[in-house]
Amino acid sequence: MATAELLKRVPESVSTAFRNKKVLITGGLGFIGSNLAQALVGLGAKVTILDALLPQYGGSHFNLQGIESQLELVDGNILDDELVEKLVTGTNFIFHLAGQIGYLDAKDQPLTDLDFNGRGNLIMLEAVRRQAPKARLMFSSSRLVYGKIQSLPVTEEHPTNPQSLYAIHKLLGEKYYAYYAHNFEVGGVSIRIPNPYGPRQQMKHSKYSIVGWFVRQAMDGETIKIFGDGSQQRDYIFIDDIVDACLRLIVQGQAGEVYNVGSHEKLTFNNMVDTILQQVGSGQKQNVSWPKDYEKNETGDYVADTSKIEQAVDWKPQVNFADGIAEMVQYYRENKQEYW
Amino acid sequence: MATAELLKRVPESVSTAFRNKKVLITGGLGFIGSNLAQALVGLGAKVTILDALLPQYGGSHFNLQGIESQLELVDGNILDDELVEKLVTGTNFIFHLAGQIGYLDAKDQPLTDLDFNGRGNLIMLEAVRRQAPKARLMFSSSRLVYGKIQSLPVTEEHPTNPQSLYAIHKLLGEKYYAYYAHNFEVGGVSIRIPNPYGPRQQMKHSKYSIVGWFVRQAMDGETIKIFGDGSQQRDYIFIDDIVDACLRLIVQGQAGEVYNVGSHEKLTFNNMVDTILQQVGSGQKQNVSWPKDYEKNETGDYVADTSKIEQAVDWKPQVNFADGIAEMVQYYRENKQEYW
Repeated sequence: MATAELLKRVPESVSTAFRNKKVLITGGLGFIGSNLAQALVGLGAKVTILDALLPQYGGSHFNLQGIESQLELVDGNILDDELVEKLVTGTNFIFHLAGQIGYLDAKDQPLTDLDFNGRGNLIMLEAVRRQAPKARLMFSSSRLVYGKIQSLPVTEEHPTNPQSLYAIHKLLGEKYYAYYAHNFEVGGVSIRIPNPYGPRQQMKHSKYSIVGWFVRQAMDGETIKIFGDGSQQRDYIFIDDIVDACLRLIVQGQAGEVYNVGSHEKLTFNNMVDTILQQVGSGQKQNVSWPKDYEKNETGDYVADTSKIEQAVDWKPQVNFADGIAEMVQYYRENKQEYW
Repeated sequence: MATAELLKRVPESVSTAFRNKKVLITGGLGFIGSNLAQALVGLGAKVTILDALLPQYGGSHFNLQGIESQLELVDGNILDDELVEKLVTGTNFIFHLAGQIGYLDAKDQPLTDLDFNGRGNLIMLEAVRRQAPKARLMFSSSRLVYGKIQSLPVTEEHPTNPQSLYAIHKLLGEKYYAYYAHNFEVGGVSIRIPNPYGPRQQMKHSKYSIVGWFVRQAMDGETIKIFGDGSQQRDYIFIDDIVDACLRLIVQGQAGEVYNVGSHEKLTFNNMVDTILQQVGSGQKQNVSWPKDYEKNETGDYVADTSKIEQAVDWKPQVNFADGIAEMVQYYRENKQEYW
């Protein structure tokens, strides 16, 4: 298991902050939430997970394998304000990860996306303001808040012109955390995550993670389709680097601020696919033209400038793409039946 | 009535666009909505007003004096998606002005503000996308989306760091209109209004418009309190200039775009108060220190750069502050009993 290695990376000033502390993870059965839970249980935190396990949303009980008995799992919805208020009371740290995932779902269900990705944050922040004003929070935002990229690498000051409802609501969430920090001293920070990948990612459909889907296709010996010429650069970041960043930021990040994370790797889409095919050892690729719906959301190349988080909490990405994919492939070889 | 003069300013290419056309104004009993209704009835449009006349929200039947019989008034809420869908069907122009007004209310009722200023726009845009895809829309945003001002005059590219929930949700609304324009070719434009004043503004309390409140205090012979030294610059814009801008933009503005309006006057708070006292001929002023709640929302001086709207639709502000206040005072002298 990667958790032990990951925990070695976290500085003592961060890891001790969680010992015997109450930590709430909403969406804790999902990809990022469950990896955080694995790490936090390892650090001796008293973890509670709130997850509604909505169909298609990527959550899985199997993601908690090995730690099920060491945490409390609450089956509930982040829009249930009474439940949220009850759960945050007495809590020290809150990782708020529950939400609708993926910009394609948001297009079909705009009001649902507003509820989960907008209203859900407002309910959480109001609950914390009233019941746990000293708690520290972390909000998972997305690099998609930037929209069309105007200059590389992208700093946190880059204009925010989101091109999807999903990204609009992520930007809304960020603004809420900034507002509650400045007006009520609620200690929340936001992290802008680019393309995440790694173990415990859902693998049933292609809507949330193209890397996950390509790994599955390669493992199944299928043909990976590349839209366009595959020259666009993306910032793929391994889950352990994200978990490391989240742990540091919730303890030491500045309330109300937004932080980029990224891998510094400048991989093209083609590089990404080639690495997956290489690491998996099966499957092939094929270039096809862009589907109509996708094209409008194409943002151009993306590479994050991560100076801000490096200066704030001494974080750096530490897993290169080939190694991350190798670890991911190994995880899914061992647990394929749970995710396919 | 000022309407006749105002209508002379509107170019024929704009005014003819409304003749015999169906126009929906949400919040049409309010300050800006009712002035728009007065103008649009004058231009021969078939006007429907949707207004819930929520207590304290500034709407008044008296605002429609003289045109009541020439329009349809629907008592209903913008969150009623079935009603909204019915009303937009067959409509050519929609001025979406209904919403919660004022950043102080938003602080106490965050979820209500999200509903009226966020969700209400999403419901409207979804209804238009489905039932009136050729309709043109106008969304009234606020200069408060900019937050702390970094450089003057402020262009539309200035960073948006809203400092209140009210302003956060106005920014959310703008992003929705941009999204629906780019993804579904829904023809909506947003206007960032600074401090509006003029006839038909509500005068019962101080929460929505400091100019309105000071005019009332002066007319009542009271003492106007100035927070701090009164040196901060604000951009006060007369209602006729706003109506002129709205009429031009909904016809000729570019879908998905955001436009500043402003007076170019660079008045300080002291200038504003002195002009009011002068025009009214009664009342006095007094400098006092800032109340605690206000200070955090102080944005610094604000003057709008209006190059974008000038180039797009040949609009310019035409009423200076002294003349605008004179007209406003005359209106409230004649109709005091309806507004006090």
